[in-house]
Amino acid sequence: MIDSISIEKIGSFTVGGKRVTLSGLPCYEAQTNANASKRLVDPNGDFWTGQLYAQYIKLAKPQVQYPLLLWHGGGLTGSCWETTPDGREGWQMFFLRHGYDVYVSDAVERGRASWSRYPEIYTDKPMFRTYKQAWESFRIGPHYASDLTKCQPYPGSQYPLEAFELAMQQAVPRWTCNNEAIQAAYDAYLAKVGPAIIISHSQNGAFAANAARHNPSCVKAIVFVEPAGLPTLDATNLAAIQDIPQLFVWGDNLDKYPTWAKNISGKDSFYKSARRYYDALYLKNKQAKWVELPQIGIQGNCHMMMQDRNSDIIAEFIHTWLKQYW
Amino acid sequence: MIDSISIEKIGSFTVGGKRVTLSGLPCYEAQTNANASKRLVDPNGDFWTGQLYAQYIKLAKPQVQYPLLLWHGGGLTGSCWETTPDGREGWQMFFLRHGYDVYVSDAVERGRASWSRYPEIYTDKPMFRTYKQAWESFRIGPHYASDLTKCQPYPGSQYPLEAFELAMQQAVPRWTCNNEAIQAAYDAYLAKVGPAIIISHSQNGAFAANAARHNPSCVKAIVFVEPAGLPTLDATNLAAIQDIPQLFVWGDNLDKYPTWAKNISGKDSFYKSARRYYDALYLKNKQAKWVELPQIGIQGNCHMMMQDRNSDIIAEFIHTWLKQYW
Repeated sequence: MIDSISIEKIGSFTVGGKRVTLSGLPCYEAQTNANASKRLVDPNGDFWTGQLYAQYIKLAKPQVQYPLLLWHGGGLTGSCWETTPDGREGWQMFFLRHGYDVYVSDAVERGRASWSRYPEIYTDKPMFRTYKQAWESFRIGPHYASDLTKCQPYPGSQYPLEAFELAMQQAVPRWTCNNEAIQAAYDAYLAKVGPAIIISHSQNGAFAANAARHNPSCVKAIVFVEPAGLPTLDATNLAAIQDIPQLFVWGDNLDKYPTWAKNISGKDSFYKSARRYYDALYLKNKQAKWVELPQIGIQGNCHMMMQDRNSDIIAEFIHTWLKQYW
Repeated sequence: MIDSISIEKIGSFTVGGKRVTLSGLPCYEAQTNANASKRLVDPNGDFWTGQLYAQYIKLAKPQVQYPLLLWHGGGLTGSCWETTPDGREGWQMFFLRHGYDVYVSDAVERGRASWSRYPEIYTDKPMFRTYKQAWESFRIGPHYASDLTKCQPYPGSQYPLEAFELAMQQAVPRWTCNNEAIQAAYDAYLAKVGPAIIISHSQNGAFAANAARHNPSCVKAIVFVEPAGLPTLDATNLAAIQDIPQLFVWGDNLDKYPTWAKNISGKDSFYKSARRYYDALYLKNKQAKWVELPQIGIQGNCHMMMQDRNSDIIAEFIHTWLKQYW
């Protein structure tokens, strides 16, 4: 599409978190700028921690009455929704062109949301995802090789393989100690900008599900793209969210990696926890929809389907589902 | 201004850096997602380091033939150019509304550009700026107090004082070991998107000056907003950049903080190194312009003048200077 879009406003903000104060740390000397002398740095004092960053793009004439929030997964920032690594328009532009105001956020500890000193504020150390972990756990292929020409993709993979190393440049570290702070910031964000539609990816699934439960009137629909770690719904939690339209979208080759496996004996998987959530929900809400793309004829999608070659087809599928409601 | 703007495209990319491979680090167990079991994490493998992130907003009908690149200072990301902490439109929107295609980047190690494990890849540890350091070194006021109602601003300060703590939420850690990687990524970025106009803030001054020297044909103009650490120009370097229009903009109360001081006996300052650069440049280029805002009747600006209450007036001043050329 080459049409221009008419924008009312582009802007950003931070939301959530709290002030922390550090004391008792030793001072040290550092040269903080090129062509400058060293200076004494006192690391003690006041800091903010636990904020989320969000950028909004508001259309002059939105066609959908609720804004669309794109919530990224673990080890990534909002940039995964922007231009795809191989240079096509991402879901941010897709949904803007389809009449939605679009908000793209960076969760606590990631991207422009920043992160806090450890072990003084964050209690754990960061984790950095390797290429191999991404190749395998994103289900791009069964076998990674440092010589990328020798990486083996799944047959018919929709992933833009030639841009794999550019995609790896979107990676950011993640911690395991911040779930509470991440959740609190999402809750505050939703309260600030809702009612809204959420598209949630991977690790974010748990945060989106909880955010909806904490503030159901702020959520008009949730699209769970391969959610990782959905909670178990008890009767109270289910009652809170059962009237919210919810779509679950899964790619291909789920059984090829244990984390996502549908059929894995004696072990839990993100697929299985999501299915338990969906099954409980569906008993109360027949509008809940579970879609495994290969079953509707869309093959070869990996965990990063918003970057796959057919990302527009999947976005179109989501848009069509949303259009039932608005 | 409430007019809408017509956009051709919004997108982003990363540029610069190299692959690194880590080995010999111990494996460990971690619970990486809510509602999931612990799994074994192998931190060894391939990673990318040294990339820069940039987001572009391209107008349907730009009025200026070169894109405008907004390059942030130390301890910040591109978000400092977006909405101001007190909620007004930032320079990103100002220049979009005035007909420029605008690119906002996050330098290496910051924001969506991500950062790399230390001490294995980065050789030094990160620094986190305290509220007090910001209050004083940004020249918001002479005296910081944790009880923000007791902070003392400079008389007539243009800073949106009530939003100081929101501004602190834009802060990100910085390292002192990455100047080479930061420079290389800016050079690659400029080569990719230039010829362009650069607005450079604070720590970025040195990187912008070097980028221009490394690739002068890609730079149509530079606006140095309170540059920190401009290099000394020798004859060769001067010859490379002497034909580029360059504007130097300074706020108020420079002598109140040693780093910025005009008059500080026996010590160097960022003001002094910038003045040496300008003086050498001006001998060859009478279009180089040095502006201290109080001398043209604009009082009370701090180091973060793109967020000051009169940020539009300063942007207008810069726009008027640029308009001479296009």
